[in-house]
Amino acid sequence: MARGGTKRRGRKRREVAALTQLPWRALRNPYAPIEVLSAEQIEAIHDTSMQILEEIGMDFLHPEAREILGRAGAEVEPGSERVRFDRGLIEEAVGHAPAEFTLHARNPAHDLTIGGNHVNFATVGSAVNASDLAGGRRDGNYNDFCDLIRLAQFFNTVHLLGGYPVEPIDLPPETRHLDATLAFVTLSDKAYHGYSLGRRRILDVIEMTRIARGIDDDRLAREPSLYSVINTSSPLRLDAPMIEGIIEMARRNQPVVVTPFTLAGAMSPVTLAGALAQQNAEALATLALAQLVNPGAPVVYGGFTSNVDMKSGAPAFGTPEYTRAAFAGGQLARRYGLPYRSSNANAANLVDAQAAYESEMSLWGAVMGHANLVLHGAGWMEGGLTASFEKFILDVELLQMMAELLRPIEVNEATLGFEAIREVQPGGHFFGAAHTLERYETAFYAPLISDWRNYETWEESGAESATQRAHKIYRRVLAEFEPPPLDPAVKEELEAFVARRTEEGGVAAA
Amino acid sequence: MARGGTKRRGRKRREVAALTQLPWRALRNPYAPIEVLSAEQIEAIHDTSMQILEEIGMDFLHPEAREILGRAGAEVEPGSERVRFDRGLIEEAVGHAPAEFTLHARNPAHDLTIGGNHVNFATVGSAVNASDLAGGRRDGNYNDFCDLIRLAQFFNTVHLLGGYPVEPIDLPPETRHLDATLAFVTLSDKAYHGYSLGRRRILDVIEMTRIARGIDDDRLAREPSLYSVINTSSPLRLDAPMIEGIIEMARRNQPVVVTPFTLAGAMSPVTLAGALAQQNAEALATLALAQLVNPGAPVVYGGFTSNVDMKSGAPAFGTPEYTRAAFAGGQLARRYGLPYRSSNANAANLVDAQAAYESEMSLWGAVMGHANLVLHGAGWMEGGLTASFEKFILDVELLQMMAELLRPIEVNEATLGFEAIREVQPGGHFFGAAHTLERYETAFYAPLISDWRNYETWEESGAESATQRAHKIYRRVLAEFEPPPLDPAVKEELEAFVARRTEEGGVAAA
Repeated sequence: MARGGTKRRGRKRREVAALTQLPWRALRNPYAPIEVLSAEQIEAIHDTSMQILEEIGMDFLHPEAREILGRAGAEVEPGSERVRFDRGLIEEAVGHAPAEFTLHARNPAHDLTIGGNHVNFATVGSAVNASDLAGGRRDGNYNDFCDLIRLAQFFNTVHLLGGYPVEPIDLPPETRHLDATLAFVTLSDKAYHGYSLGRRRILDVIEMTRIARGIDDDRLAREPSLYSVINTSSPLRLDAPMIEGIIEMARRNQPVVVTPFTLAGAMSPVTLAGALAQQNAEALATLALAQLVNPGAPVVYGGFTSNVDMKSGAPAFGTPEYTRAAFAGGQLARRYGLPYRSSNANAANLVDAQAAYESEMSLWGAVMGHANLVLHGAGWMEGGLTASFEKFILDVELLQMMAELLRPIEVNEATLGFEAIREVQPGGHFFGAAHTLERYETAFYAPLISDWRNYETWEESGAESATQRAHKIYRRVLAEFEPPPLDPAVKEELEAFVARRTEEGGVAAA
Repeated sequence: MARGGTKRRGRKRREVAALTQLPWRALRNPYAPIEVLSAEQIEAIHDTSMQILEEIGMDFLHPEAREILGRAGAEVEPGSERVRFDRGLIEEAVGHAPAEFTLHARNPAHDLTIGGNHVNFATVGSAVNASDLAGGRRDGNYNDFCDLIRLAQFFNTVHLLGGYPVEPIDLPPETRHLDATLAFVTLSDKAYHGYSLGRRRILDVIEMTRIARGIDDDRLAREPSLYSVINTSSPLRLDAPMIEGIIEMARRNQPVVVTPFTLAGAMSPVTLAGALAQQNAEALATLALAQLVNPGAPVVYGGFTSNVDMKSGAPAFGTPEYTRAAFAGGQLARRYGLPYRSSNANAANLVDAQAAYESEMSLWGAVMGHANLVLHGAGWMEGGLTASFEKFILDVELLQMMAELLRPIEVNEATLGFEAIREVQPGGHFFGAAHTLERYETAFYAPLISDWRNYETWEESGAESATQRAHKIYRRVLAEFEPPPLDPAVKEELEAFVARRTEEGGVAAA
């Protein structure tokens, strides 16, 4: 959108410019994290997770992982996938992981710091349906996939792309990762995700990322540029495709985000303490594998502990249990000096009040748990089954509000405003004061969809809901979208790679 | 509802019982408050507020207040309403206020502790319209007023009644306070509010409160049983009816909740630091008046700093500025050792996603700012103009989630669940584990309106929004409502008081 164009294009750009949003900004959390567990309780959870790994162990469903772990001193049960770990081995391996790293984007302005008090928001990932008010709920598809990338590129408070924001089911599975990654790179210049669906796929995505950044293998290994989420198959299993992803990513110094899916009462104990102990065991054992492959490789400790509805077994998100687990997960990650990942989750079927309050509960848990990486930040619905365009816009509003919440209050002689108060005097008003006029245009957060007009004005102008306003905004952004610049030589090289790999048949189904 | 009844009544009670809600519980906040200001910044705001009171002063629009303040050493400008205060006078007077007190209800089980880390949620107060999905938006009226009291009485996580939840405009203003207070006492046994609308009205309500509790004046003075919200007319004015309320309430040792309405950019400087300095000046000068009337009288420091939409001048709530001001207000209240009041506010016109996310932002500000009294906790819409029945239910869901969020995570050998994890083994599931079966019925928060069913089931059963579900719940509660027991002698005495005062003409308009 920085390049010139026709008169028509120029006019359209101005209209988009009028859609006020926050500037791109590296967010840092100035607040102390909320801590729900005492230091003793953290140690009790740590001890139990170590006991789990020592006495029960974890199943690694790939011989290469068992070989790496066995070589490092873990006890591999003969003729079985079970591996047991001494706590010293876990702690030493995890101790190599960096507390902070840079995730590079192809546009250096969009590089991200993962760790410390940095906060980064990603889009929804891995939804199988897409939805909007006009088109309803439908199977994930390439068109919606691309539109979600466009929204992610447009909004400055979305810092990176998640998963596939929606699964492009209409693309053949053999070559889907190639086309999806090509879309990531051509429609956006932000950092993105590659799936650990076996060795060959992740290697293709790593190579495309190298080409997209225009760098060689050595530099790629020095500059993490692709991330991959690793989910354990809770309880206590790690599947083969994920293991291959960990090994290839770690070898090339690319970050894996290890996230056990410990739904209390289903895949983990019904008690939060038990679910957290199991989460911690699974996360640490998996992170240890990455560190044993390549000591010092960038990794992220992920927490996704939530609860199920015990009447139906349905997963729930943004519950009080979820939020407390998000705080606790942050405490555990900090216990090991690791960057922390959490999510903006909800289980609503409609972009309504429930979607908003469950997302708020999740986001407050993530941000005040000091998550460095907030996945599913924009667009996630129905416990992850659906990517909603209106929810995407709603979430950008929530993320922007969080970004503003993290801004310190400026306190100095000018902002304390004594002279303004003296000028206005008791009983006056500040609308016309010089102190106000000098600042009013930028003094406050300007919302995307919040409507603060009085009831009568709002009603006369159509009585739209926040969700209806979100619909209009997403359509407007897409209508005006122009992709970021991409070096034609890089584009050509990427397309040639995709063409060659497609001709080779991509990656055959396992 | 504890008494027996007909068979029909018995059946109805069981249906209400099936509406799961949290038990009545005194809430305490185990988390450290979120602090947005450094100690130095707090002192800078304190200093500026003292400078405001010393050099600019505040207008007290009642001679009795000026007399009390002048006698205590404040500088009353001759022939004017302006009063200037030495900071020593303010700090000494405010220093008498208790850090914590009990607010008594006519049912001792509903007594509340205001201060420390206690959290209490009140209903909406002072709305001029009522609204629900079936009847739309309408003028406040006695019928809706009573229905809102019934909801407040029914829900355990609503600890006290606010304002009038909606203004019963159809009652004559001369006797409205009598009929409204009688409704508070007969439909509810929780603590309630009296308006400081001049001396005679608040004295009537204090006397009715004494009768309702069945105690004498001395005991009433030992047991605060009625609270009154005092709003300053920002900037820096205190109106005569409010002053009379402060004087009569403080004399009888009943708590006033002093809340400046410092909308940044309108009634206070456009900068948060300036708005907070002015809030602090107004609150402390007004609290000092209460303490000079009766040193040690219970009081609450209220914060309501928010911002306006600088395009339209419309007030906004639940904004990032609002939330940070709520954190800062708590820090200021703690600076003076005072209980703190905040609110659950929003500016939405519809019970939609905006209403939910703005309320969440307000509630997190209140709870993590360590507010002891959260007014407008349930039902507030449109910046306070409307009390919504569906919003009331939605807010009870939010309040219940907050209550559960404040519960510590239990960490012990049983909850850490090592044996359950060993029993289930890697790759198993926990649905049938003994550890789960022993706990699943009470393990997790059971929501009021959150719907966690899958999309297909939800759609087949009517695809209702959270707001539509809230509508059904409020109707159901009202259909089944039975008032709490009330001693017939007390009721008779109250009715006789109301009859006598009505015959006398109530309180003529000023």
